[in-house]
Amino acid sequence: MRAPGGLSRLLLAARGWGRLGAMARYSTEQRGRPNSPDYRLYFKNADGKYISPFHDIPLLAASKEDKEIPAKRAKTTGSEVLYNMIVEVPRWTNAKMEIATEEPLNPIKQDIKKGKLRYVANIFPHKGYIWNYGALPQTWEDPNHTDTITGCCGDNDPIDVCEIGSKVRSSGEIVQVKVLGVLALVDEGETDWKIIAISVDDPEAHKIHDIDDVKKHKPGYLEATVDWFRLYKVPDDKPENHFAFNGEFKDKDFAAEIIKSTHEHWKALLHKKADGGTINCTNVLVSGSPFCCSEEDARSIVQSAPVHVNGDSVSPEVDFWYFCPK
Amino acid sequence: MRAPGGLSRLLLAARGWGRLGAMARYSTEQRGRPNSPDYRLYFKNADGKYISPFHDIPLLAASKEDKEIPAKRAKTTGSEVLYNMIVEVPRWTNAKMEIATEEPLNPIKQDIKKGKLRYVANIFPHKGYIWNYGALPQTWEDPNHTDTITGCCGDNDPIDVCEIGSKVRSSGEIVQVKVLGVLALVDEGETDWKIIAISVDDPEAHKIHDIDDVKKHKPGYLEATVDWFRLYKVPDDKPENHFAFNGEFKDKDFAAEIIKSTHEHWKALLHKKADGGTINCTNVLVSGSPFCCSEEDARSIVQSAPVHVNGDSVSPEVDFWYFCPK
Repeated sequence: MRAPGGLSRLLLAARGWGRLGAMARYSTEQRGRPNSPDYRLYFKNADGKYISPFHDIPLLAASKEDKEIPAKRAKTTGSEVLYNMIVEVPRWTNAKMEIATEEPLNPIKQDIKKGKLRYVANIFPHKGYIWNYGALPQTWEDPNHTDTITGCCGDNDPIDVCEIGSKVRSSGEIVQVKVLGVLALVDEGETDWKIIAISVDDPEAHKIHDIDDVKKHKPGYLEATVDWFRLYKVPDDKPENHFAFNGEFKDKDFAAEIIKSTHEHWKALLHKKADGGTINCTNVLVSGSPFCCSEEDARSIVQSAPVHVNGDSVSPEVDFWYFCPK
Repeated sequence: MRAPGGLSRLLLAARGWGRLGAMARYSTEQRGRPNSPDYRLYFKNADGKYISPFHDIPLLAASKEDKEIPAKRAKTTGSEVLYNMIVEVPRWTNAKMEIATEEPLNPIKQDIKKGKLRYVANIFPHKGYIWNYGALPQTWEDPNHTDTITGCCGDNDPIDVCEIGSKVRSSGEIVQVKVLGVLALVDEGETDWKIIAISVDDPEAHKIHDIDDVKKHKPGYLEATVDWFRLYKVPDDKPENHFAFNGEFKDKDFAAEIIKSTHEHWKALLHKKADGGTINCTNVLVSGSPFCCSEEDARSIVQSAPVHVNGDSVSPEVDFWYFCPK
C-alpha cells in the first residue's frame, strides 16, 4: 500500500493555521493556578468586554457584514451554516476542562471528582480525548425535558461537540465549525448528544460535508468515537455507556434539528421560562434576559477570582494506559 | 463490563515513580538548540565522566555489589536478567530522536530526512510512538553480517527496544528492563529486530515475564505494535514494512539469543575485528578497545558542541493525524 499523495501535500495545505490567531474574535484570561482546583479561564469579546462563553457567544458564527446582530445572519460556506464551538479539551489531552455552568460568567475550569482534579483515563489504543472536545454556546440539554427520541432527560449542560480536524486546539479557543452528524449517547440515564463537526479552516473541510464523508476520509474515526464514549468511564469503575440508534450516527440535518431544540431550551432558560436550577445565567449581551449584568459587574466577577500564578506540574499517573480486559 | 479493580489500585502501585531520579546512575547534558538540527544530548556516568551511551553503558544492568566490573555480574529480579535500555523516543512523542552512531561519544540527536528534522506521522488510532522506544547499549546489527534467520543484513544500529511500561520516559533516560520477546521487522531489506521489554520498576512488572504475559495483561498491544511498524513509513511515501515469522513475536529466550549475538558483533566492532564503516567507536571505558579515549578528550568533544540555548517551538503540522486508506 502506498499513501495517495502522502502526508506532505496535506501538510502544505495546512500551512494557513498560523494566521488564525490574528482573526480571533474572542480572547481568554487565566486566573488562579493551572493544574489546580482554583484555575479559571474567563472570556472576553473583541470589544474587550468580559462575557459568558455559554450565554454571550452566539450559536451561529456571524457573517462579517453583520457584526451587530450576529445570530441573525449566519456565516455560511457554500450552503453550509457555521456554528461557534467552544473548545474545552484539546485533542490528546486528559484534563477534563469544562464550562463551569454554575459559576457567574461560566469560565472554563477543570472538573473535580471526589475532591480531586479529574483526568480521563487513556484507554488503549487511545491517548486522552481523540478529538478537540467542547460545546456549542447558547444551547442547553434541559434535565426537566424528556427527549422524545431517546426517552431520556437532558444532562443539564450545553450540547457537546467532537471537532475532528487535524489541528490540536487550545482550551478556550472559539472555532467556527461545520456540523456533520450526531451520536446519541445515553450516559447514566441522561441523553447526551455528541455533535460531530469539523473546523471550517481545516485543510480537508472542503471535502467533508456530512457524516458519510467522515467515514470515507477518516476511516475508523467514527467507530473509535463510539468505542471511546462506550468505555471512557470504565477505568473509574463505572459501567459502559450505551447509545440510542444502536450506536449509529445521524446525519447533519438531524444534528441541526437537535441543536435547534437545545438552543430553544437555552432561550427559555435565559428568559426565565424554564427552571435552570443551579445553572448560572449571568450574561452581558443577551437582550431581554433578566440575568443580564453590566460591564462593570462582569469585570468585578473576574477580578474577584484568584490572580494567575504559575501552575503545578501534572502527576505522571495521568500517563497511565488502561487496557480493557477482553 | 466493569474494570477488575479499576485504575485507582494500579495508580497507587505506581506511586514509586518519583523516587527514580535519585537512583539515576547516568545523567545527560544538553547542547545546542532543542528542536533544531544542532541539538545534542550527551551522557555522563555517576563519576561525572562524559561517556558514549552506545559503547560505555553496559548491556547488562550491574548488581549493586559489583560496581567496578558491571558487565561481569548482572542484576537480576528472581531468575530474570536485567538489561540497560537507552530511551531515545518517549511514548506518544513524534520527534525521531536517536543515538548518533557516527558522531564521537554518540549523543542523542534528532534524525534529519531531506534536510528537515524528522518526525514520525501519527497513524490513526495512534499518537506518536506507542512505547518508550530506544536501544540496548553495546549491541550492533552488523550490516556485513547476514542473519541466518531472516536472510537479511543488519541495519547498522544498536538493537531497538520497545519498553511497554506505564510511565512515559524521557529521551536520554537509562531504564533497567526485563526482556520479554522480539519481533523480526524487515525494513527495506534489512533485519531490524524489535525487542519487547518492560521496565523492572513498572507496577505490573512482577506479573509480566514473557511475551504471553503481554498478551494477557495488555490485550491488543502486540497487534498494535505490528500494525505500527508495518505502516509507520507509509505517510512518507514508503512501502509497508514486512516481518519474518509471519509477524509473530518470539519469546524471551529467543530474544536473549538475538541480543547476545548483536553484543558479539558490537565487541568485534569495538576491537576492530569487524568493519564499522562510518560508525564512531570512540569510547571511555571499554578496556582493550583501540578506540578508547581519555577523560580529557571526551570532555573536549562535548565542549566543542554548540552551547545549550532555548529551543524553537515545534510546528503544529506534527499534530496531523494520518488515516490509512482502506
